[in-house]
Order: sequence, then C-alpha cells, then structure tokens
Amino acid sequence: MVKGSKMSRPVVLITMGDPAGAGPEITLKALSHPEVQEIARFIIVGDLKVLMKAEGIVKTPLNLVPIDNLDELMGQSQQIGVMDLKNVEVDRLEYGKPSQMGGKASYEYIVTAVNLIMKGKAHALVTAPISKESLHLAGYNYPGHTELLADLAGVKTVKMMLIAKHLRVSHVTTHVSLRKAITELIKTENIYTTIKLTHEALVRLFGIEKPKIAVAGLNPHASENGLFGDEEEKEIAPAIRLAEKDGIDARGPYPPDSVFYRAYYHKEFDAVIAMYHDQGHIPVKMVGFMEGVNMTLGLPFIRTSPDHGTVWGKAGKGTADETAMLEAIKLAAHLAKKLAG
Amino acid sequence: MVKGSKMSRPVVLITMGDPAGAGPEITLKALSHPEVQEIARFIIVGDLKVLMKAEGIVKTPLNLVPIDNLDELMGQSQQIGVMDLKNVEVDRLEYGKPSQMGGKASYEYIVTAVNLIMKGKAHALVTAPISKESLHLAGYNYPGHTELLADLAGVKTVKMMLIAKHLRVSHVTTHVSLRKAITELIKTENIYTTIKLTHEALVRLFGIEKPKIAVAGLNPHASENGLFGDEEEKEIAPAIRLAEKDGIDARGPYPPDSVFYRAYYHKEFDAVIAMYHDQGHIPVKMVGFMEGVNMTLGLPFIRTSPDHGTVWGKAGKGTADETAMLEAIKLAAHLAKKLAG
Repeated sequence: MVKGSKMSRPVVLITMGDPAGAGPEITLKALSHPEVQEIARFIIVGDLKVLMKAEGIVKTPLNLVPIDNLDELMGQSQQIGVMDLKNVEVDRLEYGKPSQMGGKASYEYIVTAVNLIMKGKAHALVTAPISKESLHLAGYNYPGHTELLADLAGVKTVKMMLIAKHLRVSHVTTHVSLRKAITELIKTENIYTTIKLTHEALVRLFGIEKPKIAVAGLNPHASENGLFGDEEEKEIAPAIRLAEKDGIDARGPYPPDSVFYRAYYHKEFDAVIAMYHDQGHIPVKMVGFMEGVNMTLGLPFIRTSPDHGTVWGKAGKGTADETAMLEAIKLAAHLAKKLAG
Repeated sequence: MVKGSKMSRPVVLITMGDPAGAGPEITLKALSHPEVQEIARFIIVGDLKVLMKAEGIVKTPLNLVPIDNLDELMGQSQQIGVMDLKNVEVDRLEYGKPSQMGGKASYEYIVTAVNLIMKGKAHALVTAPISKESLHLAGYNYPGHTELLADLAGVKTVKMMLIAKHLRVSHVTTHVSLRKAITELIKTENIYTTIKLTHEALVRLFGIEKPKIAVAGLNPHASENGLFGDEEEKEIAPAIRLAEKDGIDARGPYPPDSVFYRAYYHKEFDAVIAMYHDQGHIPVKMVGFMEGVNMTLGLPFIRTSPDHGTVWGKAGKGTADETAMLEAIKLAAHLAKKLAG
C-alpha cells in the first residue's frame, strides 16, 4: 500500500448518520477495504462510543483515533480519525428505532462537518444514512440530507445526481408530488440549471472534457411531437437550446424509456437529465441497487452518500451491505484528490 | 423434434407487420428456431411476395406454404402457412420508409387475423411491428396496435402488460401525457380494472394459482404517507382494497423506485401494476431490452408482440434482432397450448 503524505491524500469527512441505524457499521466496513485508505485520509464525525460498539459488531482491523482538530492526523496513515461529539447515551441506544436522541445527534454531525468543510478544513463529505423520522422527533423538518446540506451551506439550488457504475443521472425535481413537479417545477429555467450543474460536475470533477448530456422527455415517447403532451416543446427543448448556447453538448428530449438504456448499455451519454424522482431512480436501482451513490450538485463542496436509508432491520447485526457506502467513499475520495490536485 | 398432431399443437397467427419494416424478417428468423415449431402451428398473415423476398435476405430453411383457409395445414408439421393478402406491390417497396401502401397492408393483416381468431379459427395472435406513421398515411389514426385491436375486437378496456424474463408489468395508463394520466386516468376504478385483468391473466394463462400482485405508487416513495401527493391514499389504496375484497392478493402502494427491483431480483411478486407508461417501461427495458414482450390484457384472445418498433434502420438487411419476436411467439404458443390443451 502507498503510504500517503499530507500532500497527496485529501481529507474526507464522513458523518456516521443515525446512531441507531446501520450507518456506523457500514462506515467501518467500507473503510476497512484496503484500497480506500490509499486515496485519502478519513475523519468520521460521530460518537466514539457508538463507533466502538459498532466496531465490536463488525470486527474490522481499523485503528480509530479520537481527534480534536483535523490537523492531528497529518502524515499518519492507516488511522481513522474520529471527531467525537459525545452526543449519544449508548445505554439508551435502541438499534433499528428512530429516536429524538438519534435525530439530534445525526443533525449535529452534519452541522459540524459542514462547518469544517466550509472553512476549507476538508476536501469532501460523505454522509451515512440518517432517519427523517428521527430528525422530525428532534424537531428538524427536512425531507432529506440534501435539503439540510443546502440550507447549512447557504445555497438555494442543489440537484441530486445518482450514480451506478457508469450511469449518471441528474434530477430536475426530487421529493415533491409528481403532479406538482409537472405543473410547477419541470420548467425551462430549472431544467437548464440542472443541465448546467451536471455539465460543470462532469467537466470539473469527473474530468470529462466535452461531456455528452442526454435530456429525457417527460411524456411517453417524449410526447411524439406533441401527441402526448407539450412539455417537451414548451419547457424541455428551450432548456436544451439555452445549454447549447453555453457550448454544452446537451441533446434530446429523448423517450424516457430508452434513454437510460442507451446511456448504460451503449454508453452513448456521460449523463442523463431525469425530469422527476422515479424517472431517474428506477433505472439506477435496476442496474445497481446496492452500489448506487448519491451526489449533490450545486454545493460549494463535494458530497456523496449511499443511495439507501438507515437499513433499520440490519442495524446492530453487522449484516448491512457496505457496497454503496464504499462506492460513495471511493467516489468522494477520488474527486477530492482530483480537486486537491 | 416432436411431430405434433392437430390436438396437441394450437394454431398461432402472426401478422407480418409493415412490409417495409423488419417485421417479415424477424418473423422468419424467429420461426426458424427449432423449439418453436414443437409448440404450435403457425400461420403468417401477410404478403407472400414480401415474405419470399425476406426469406431471400435472412435465408432460413423454412417451408412456407400458401393457404386459403386455416384447416389446410392440419397435421402437417414443419410447414409455415401463409395467408397471402396480395396487398403489396413489391417493386414499390422501399425498406425503412413509412408509406401509405405499407400502412394499408399492415392494417389489413390485423383485420384478417382478428376476424379469424374471433371466429375461433386460431388460439393466439402475435403481431410483428407496424408503423404508426404508415397507418396515418393510409388514413388510420390509432396510437398503436393495442387500441386498434381493442376496436376490432369490440372491447373497451384493454391493458398493456410488458414481460421481460420473469418481470411482468401491467400499465394503468399508456399513451397519454403524464399530466392527463395523473389528473384524469390514474383513478380507483381504472387501477382496480388493471389489477383484476392482471390477476385473471396470471391465474388463467400463466397458471399461477394465487398470484402476488404489487401495486406501485404514483409519487416518490409512494408519497411517504401524504408528504408528496395524495393519489396513493385517494386513488390507489382504495383500488387495492377493492381487489382484496375479490380475494386478490394485491399489495401496496409501494415506492415505485424499488418495487420493480423487488419483483425482478427478489422475485417477491408475480406482477407489478405500473401507474403510467414510463414507470413500467423503464424497468422492463433496463432488464430485457431485446427480449421484452408486450401482451394485451382484456382482449377475448391471446395477443403478444415484441416490445419494439419497425426497426427501420435494419429493414431489408437481415440484421434486425429477432429475440423479442421469438419470445413473443413462444409466449403466445405456450399460453395457447395451455388454453387449448
């Protein structure tokens, strides 16, 4: 293994997620894959006692080192730093159950991590699963991680990109009813912004010089020239033309039922723009359910996460699959390394 | 090979589709697979000259026998009957192009086939791809095969089931804008009918005694208890309750982005009810693009077709893939045998 130096290995923060979920376990299992430590140094933002308990369950050979600030681990490879927020009473921890304590704790990990990364102390953030129910019990009403992160980072527009293997899908809309998405949100400006953020990410982070971006239609067969709806003509095509004016290679609108197939099996496009949550989530889950990685576009820092929830049913048992978490960590580390140069 | 008798081999009609498309070629290529002739006797409804020309291109060892009525082939195995409608001027045939002649011809194949099957002369119908554009040029304004077949058979309600391997997906709505689907068509009665027709097909045709039917939600995460839309509560759940009253094992509404995964990878359900075209088409295409078979529920006869179009680009070249057509023929033949047997 390469012993990385301060220069070559970027710093990646990992929030451990809801303490009662599988987050702490999949974090440790993922970090114990030898290849990840070659790429970056990792700091878990969480609760040390919860992590030690998880370590007792998953039995990895990791060397967890409590630290107070991010400089302490410099040059020390093979160690995983832990910023211990000491905000969980382990005796009260019930695996597999949402709780006010878990919601408050997981919220605090994210706040701490975002503060650090906004100050330039780290290069990327990976977030283990949180529970919306726990957050609600603790008084925080966010539909998910993404909205919370945008709020903390002070940005208005973020977009969700899902990644499974070489299939990359950005979403114009996500956690709203399909009716509202169609009537209020699948609009030229919003579609254009999604194309733009996707293009930026592909160029700047993924290093694709001239990315090809496919834009899905909204209606069956992309409406067949207006036969089944007019959103392609009124909203989507104008957004593509705006992007083209910026020199972006955006194409479409394509029939939604084959564009993901073409991107995945024929590798015709570097990314696909999906109009709504399930249009993008269904194909990604069909090709890579366990490996799906969620990446937030539009934040002032790199952020990835596994595309699944707290896995309540397996929490505390060590049996939750760490594949998606591992992929999220690897992607964040690689992108951070590229940016850190 | 089994030499089938009149009793054991049902009669399957195949309309050859648009003469300028790849329909005739994939029909012959599919029929030349030795296993299909063991199951049924096949009659192609089309134009003999076009078929002979296709035969010269794909060079199969098929024995095409022109017949005037369906009884002529009784007991003769290894022969493919051809009902020759003599409605194409082969000199004028331009491969890969929609035309008035092609639209009229393909319409007539379907009318003839439906008449025969409605009279009880055949057990199942497989339709090779037609061109909506050709149909329009010939003055027939149907959004597709399915609507035309319903019209000819005199039924009002038909539903599309897509099948790829063991993934079976029935659609509550298909060729309408997503906006119209949501506001007008994704309603309790329509959903209930789709569940009912699916259940009937699974029991009667697929021989599944107590099928498990999953019903997808409409909104992200199936609305998370009303957080993103109310159609799950207002329209979908009541339809499931109606089906349950009939003794149908219908479950849901499930989050659309994982229900197809569960049906396909975990085999939790015998079929999934999709609310709209792309919700069902995207997952089927992602797992079995070339093998996808379309089956029409609600017709008074068995009807299948390959889930793709005329493949204009490969027509006349012999290169169009016959996999989906083969699967459509095999499914129709098996189901016909079950019914006839």
